[in-house]
Amino acid sequence: MTTPRSRSSDNGDVVCRHRVIFGDTDAMGIVYYGNYMRYLEIGRGEYFRSVGGAYRAVEEAGYALPVSEVRLKYRAPARYDDEIEIHTRLERVGRVRLRFLYRIERISDGCLLADGFTIHGCTVSKTGRPTRLPDIVLEALGLD
Amino acid sequence: MTTPRSRSSDNGDVVCRHRVIFGDTDAMGIVYYGNYMRYLEIGRGEYFRSVGGAYRAVEEAGYALPVSEVRLKYRAPARYDDEIEIHTRLERVGRVRLRFLYRIERISDGCLLADGFTIHGCTVSKTGRPTRLPDIVLEALGLD
Amino acid sequence: MTTPRSRSSDNGDVVCRHRVIFGDTDAMGIVYYGNYMRYLEIGRGEYFRSVGGAYRAVEEAGYALPVSEVRLKYRAPARYDDEIEIHTRLERVGRVRLRFLYRIERISDGCLLADGFTIHGCTVSKTGRPTRLPDIVLEALGLD
Amino acid sequence: MTTPRSRSSDNGDVVCRHRVIFGDTDAMGIVYYGNYMRYLEIGRGEYFRSVGGAYRAVEEAGYALPVSEVRLKYRAPARYDDEIEIHTRLERVGRVRLRFLYRIERISDGCLLADGFTIHGCTVSKTGRPTRLPDIVLEALGLD
Repeated sequence: MTTPRSRSSDNGDVVCRHRVIFGDTDAMGIVYYGNYMRYLEIGRGEYFRSVGGAYRAVEEAGYALPVSEVRLKYRAPARYDDEIEIHTRLERVGRVRLRFLYRIERISDGCLLADGFTIHGCTVSKTGRPTRLPDIVLEALGLD
Repeated sequence: MTTPRSRSSDNGDVVCRHRVIFGDTDAMGIVYYGNYMRYLEIGRGEYFRSVGGAYRAVEEAGYALPVSEVRLKYRAPARYDDEIEIHTRLERVGRVRLRFLYRIERISDGCLLADGFTIHGCTVSKTGRPTRLPDIVLEALGLD
Repeated sequence: MTTPRSRSSDNGDVVCRHRVIFGDTDAMGIVYYGNYMRYLEIGRGEYFRSVGGAYRAVEEAGYALPVSEVRLKYRAPARYDDEIEIHTRLERVGRVRLRFLYRIERISDGCLLADGFTIHGCTVSKTGRPTRLPDIVLEALGLD
Repeated sequence: MTTPRSRSSDNGDVVCRHRVIFGDTDAMGIVYYGNYMRYLEIGRGEYFRSVGGAYRAVEEAGYALPVSEVRLKYRAPARYDDEIEIHTRLERVGRVRLRFLYRIERISDGCLLADGFTIHGCTVSKTGRPTRLPDIVLEALGLD
C-alpha cells in the first residue's frame, strides 16, 4: 500500500488520479463545476509531493499560498465513476506569485475534461499579510 | 434587507429557510446525503442567533463545539430549487455535552425530508482538549 | 417569511445575501476557494428569479446551461459568520452563450472579496448536445 | 499505475485510502463533519469494486440505493494532509435494506477517527419508488 500515487509525465507534468463519486456530481448528472476546484487542489498537493516537498512544510513554517485567481474551461462533462487524471505543472514562479497549469482528462478515452490555471500569492498565516515567496516555499517546490 | 432570517415556532423550534442549489445535489437528481450536514449547521447557527447569542462568541472566547455524533434519517428526497425549512431545537444540555434535534421539511407541501440529531462536546480551541461546557457557551445559548 | 431574498441595485445588478458557515471554510481559516462557485450559483439562481423567470423552467423544457468557463479573482478572504452580498449581472447574451458577471462583498465593511465571470453554453439535457439558446432561455432571462 | 486501490483485511473489511485536502477541512482546522459522508461513499464504492461488482451496474439496470439513515461517531479530529484508511463492511442484507459499517482511521498512528453505519433502501431510478432488493444488487455485492 505504499505505491506512489502520482507520476511525472514526459513533459514534466505531475499526474495523479481520482475516481468521481456522487458527492462530486450534481443533478445535471455531471461533476459540479465547483468540485473541479477540489481536483485542482489534489493536483497541487501531488505536485508538491512529487518534487520531494510538502505543502504542509510551508504551513508549518507559518506561511500559506492562498489562491488569488482561478480560470478553468470545462471542455466535456465528467460523470459518476469516471476515473480521471489530473495533470499539474508549475508554470511560473515570480517574486510574489506562483502559477500552476492543469489539464484534467478522463482515463478511459483520453477525453480532455477541463483545463486552466490557478495563481497563488504568499501570506504570513498569523497575520494574513502578503509577503515575498520565502525560501521554504521554493524548497517545497524543489527550486532551491 | 434587515428582515429576520429565522423565527421561533410554537413548540420552541427555531426555523430557518434554504433553497436547494445544484451544488447541494448529486447525479441521483436529489440532495446528496452529506450535504444535509450543511443544512443542520445552518440550523444550529440560526438557533444561536435566535436566542440572542452567536457561535462566533464561543469561538472568540477560545472554545469550539465540534460534532461528536450525528444521526439522520432521510425520509424523502429534496430536489433542485426546493425551498426547505430547517427546524432546530436544543434538546439537552449536560455538563459536557449538548444535543440538537432537527427536522427538515419541504415548504411547498410540508413533506418531512429528514430528521435527526447532533451531539456536541466542548473543546479548548488551542489544544483541542475536551472541557466542561463553560459559561460563555451557556450564555450563547441563552441559558445563563 | 415571504420577504424577497434579492433586490436589484441601481446599476442593474441582482443582489442577494449569504452567511458563511463552517462548511464553506477550510483549515486556512477562510472560505475555501472552490466554495465561491456555490456563491456564484446562488447569485445566478436569484438573477433568474429577479427577472421573473426560473432556471427550473429551462430544465423542465429539456435544456441545461452548464458552465463552460469560470474566472474568479480572490481579493480578500471571507471568514466564518461573515455576511456577504453576491452581485450578479447578465453581461452578454450571444447566439450560443451567456456571460454572467459577479462581485462578492462583505456587508459589514463593503470589502470586495472576489469578482469574476462565468460563461454558459446551452445543451439539450437528454443528449448533452450543444444547441443555440432556445426561446425558453431568453424568456427565463426576461429577454423575450 | 494499475495498483489496486483497496484491499480486504483479515476480518473481511474492505480498506481504501484517502488523503485529506483543504477542501475537506473547515475553519476549526479539522475535517468538516459533513465531509466524512464523502469518505463513507468512497468506502462503499470500493466495497462494490472489491467484490467484483460495481455500483454503476446497479445504476445502469435502473435502480438506486439511496441512503435512508446515517449514524456516525466522531472520535478524534482528522487534519489537512492526514492519510486515512476507510474500512467498510456489508453487515446486513435484508429483503429491502442494506447496512454498511465503517471505521475510519489515521494511518500514521492507527487512531480511530470515526465509526458508524449507513442504511440503504432500493428505489427504481425513474420513479423513485422503493422496491425489494433486485438480483442485480445482490450480484453487484457478490451475493448471488
